[in-house]
Amino acid sequence: MSRDQLFLGIDGGGSKCKARLVDTRGELLGTGVAGPANAFQDACQTRVSIVEAARQALADAQLPADALGGLVVGAGLAGVNIPRCHHEMTAWQHPFAAFYLATDIHVACLGAHAGADGAVIVAGTGSVGYSLVNGVGTSFGAHGFPFGDKGSGAWLGLEALKAALLAMDELGPATTLLGAIESHLGTASLGIVDAMAGGSSRDYGALAPLVFTAAAAGDAVARGIVEEGAAYLDALARRLQRAGTGEFCLLGGLAVHITPWLSADVAARIRAPLGQPDEGAVRLALTAHRR
Amino acid sequence: MSRDQLFLGIDGGGSKCKARLVDTRGELLGTGVAGPANAFQDACQTRVSIVEAARQALADAQLPADALGGLVVGAGLAGVNIPRCHHEMTAWQHPFAAFYLATDIHVACLGAHAGADGAVIVAGTGSVGYSLVNGVGTSFGAHGFPFGDKGSGAWLGLEALKAALLAMDELGPATTLLGAIESHLGTASLGIVDAMAGGSSRDYGALAPLVFTAAAAGDAVARGIVEEGAAYLDALARRLQRAGTGEFCLLGGLAVHITPWLSADVAARIRAPLGQPDEGAVRLALTAHRR
Repeated sequence: MSRDQLFLGIDGGGSKCKARLVDTRGELLGTGVAGPANAFQDACQTRVSIVEAARQALADAQLPADALGGLVVGAGLAGVNIPRCHHEMTAWQHPFAAFYLATDIHVACLGAHAGADGAVIVAGTGSVGYSLVNGVGTSFGAHGFPFGDKGSGAWLGLEALKAALLAMDELGPATTLLGAIESHLGTASLGIVDAMAGGSSRDYGALAPLVFTAAAAGDAVARGIVEEGAAYLDALARRLQRAGTGEFCLLGGLAVHITPWLSADVAARIRAPLGQPDEGAVRLALTAHRR
Repeated sequence: MSRDQLFLGIDGGGSKCKARLVDTRGELLGTGVAGPANAFQDACQTRVSIVEAARQALADAQLPADALGGLVVGAGLAGVNIPRCHHEMTAWQHPFAAFYLATDIHVACLGAHAGADGAVIVAGTGSVGYSLVNGVGTSFGAHGFPFGDKGSGAWLGLEALKAALLAMDELGPATTLLGAIESHLGTASLGIVDAMAGGSSRDYGALAPLVFTAAAAGDAVARGIVEEGAAYLDALARRLQRAGTGEFCLLGGLAVHITPWLSADVAARIRAPLGQPDEGAVRLALTAHRR
């Protein structure tokens, strides 16, 4: 291995792609951020975003653009747990010296535990549990909108909209969620159906804060939704414990909001992450290349 | 009104568009069937399907194609309860003498009760309750996939897939639905995620028969799903009763399967329909034109 070898970690997600450029000792040289990199949603856009984030990181490090061809890349990408998407990315004639691929949750776990065994639960727009035992990772949950990702922001938003529409038709209990969603969308009555029809998981995730607000104000329907979501995350934590990882890091935008709703025994096993997903992606590149 | 005036009833839905051609006395002259006519999903395709079905009905009646311009049309279309979709259809420079528009559920109710006041519940790919009191119709439920249409085929299929994935990850109780869905889709494990991702309400509705089969064989998870769907349809029937229509017709492909799961008091109020939705659409045309 050359002493001048450069390593790049890629943390790819549905909204953006982060790049972290380091030297052989793991010292940070530069960073970059580009567009979406969810291999399941768009493999082509994912490739474009990775290259763009890499170019930015090289520029940030004041390195020449043609250093791209010498990079050893470790990439954590949403969607590559699906065989078809994994194949689409590994079949890529990439412009780097090497390209090592893992799921976004794998590099998040590597980052959170500084490369050691451990577990993470991510609760953001989606939700997933991940356990790394003897270097072997196992994923629980996730699977995508609308059938997976229970307890996530998208799930909370979908359940809130369902409850609001039932209340509107007097087919379910009254809830302040109806007025909150109408205000959020700037429309009323059947207008909320039109506004949310064909909505993405992110559109639904944008409704999640309304659910926590309504639950905190004592709305019984909102409390029921948050409690069901938290119970699922409890189940996810207990599933990770059965897989051999009792302690875990709770990551994602929902973490701070949902933690007070978790069971005490589950909340007691939450640990602060040691590093970020892009640092985990760098570890993936360093480890895979030295193997 | 000319004695030779022709009236056409259009029953438009998400999978096909039926046309029924009658004379001034309501005598059947010919019928036609064309492609999808769901104004919410595709207003352009809906217009194309209506004209094609009308042409077929004229040909079936051995009438000249240029009789199209003399037709008085009554159309019941899915989606036109949404203001934007209603506007898209009423703004149509249609090729007929007159075009009267209503929702698909309104003409289904007109058909089922031969034009009299009454109520219907449709449980097919979607679900909806409708009450016609003093000629004024009110709709309950529906709203579309994935947030509405509880108790429908699409809802049953979605709930089945959610339960199967929870079972796969040992995050929920074991269920024979997992194997049944894998067989139905001709794939296994994460392959079912890939197969159903981005699926339409019809793709989910296609899973509904598996739920009834599993429930009949005693699968507790499937029974729970069917019971929750039936409880919603019970609530829909009681909502119609509060709206002033105690008896109702239960229409749609799920009707025969879900009836045994309804509460006895609700099941006792089910009446056989007197006519079909395309007959209701003809009534819409005849009544509106004579007004």
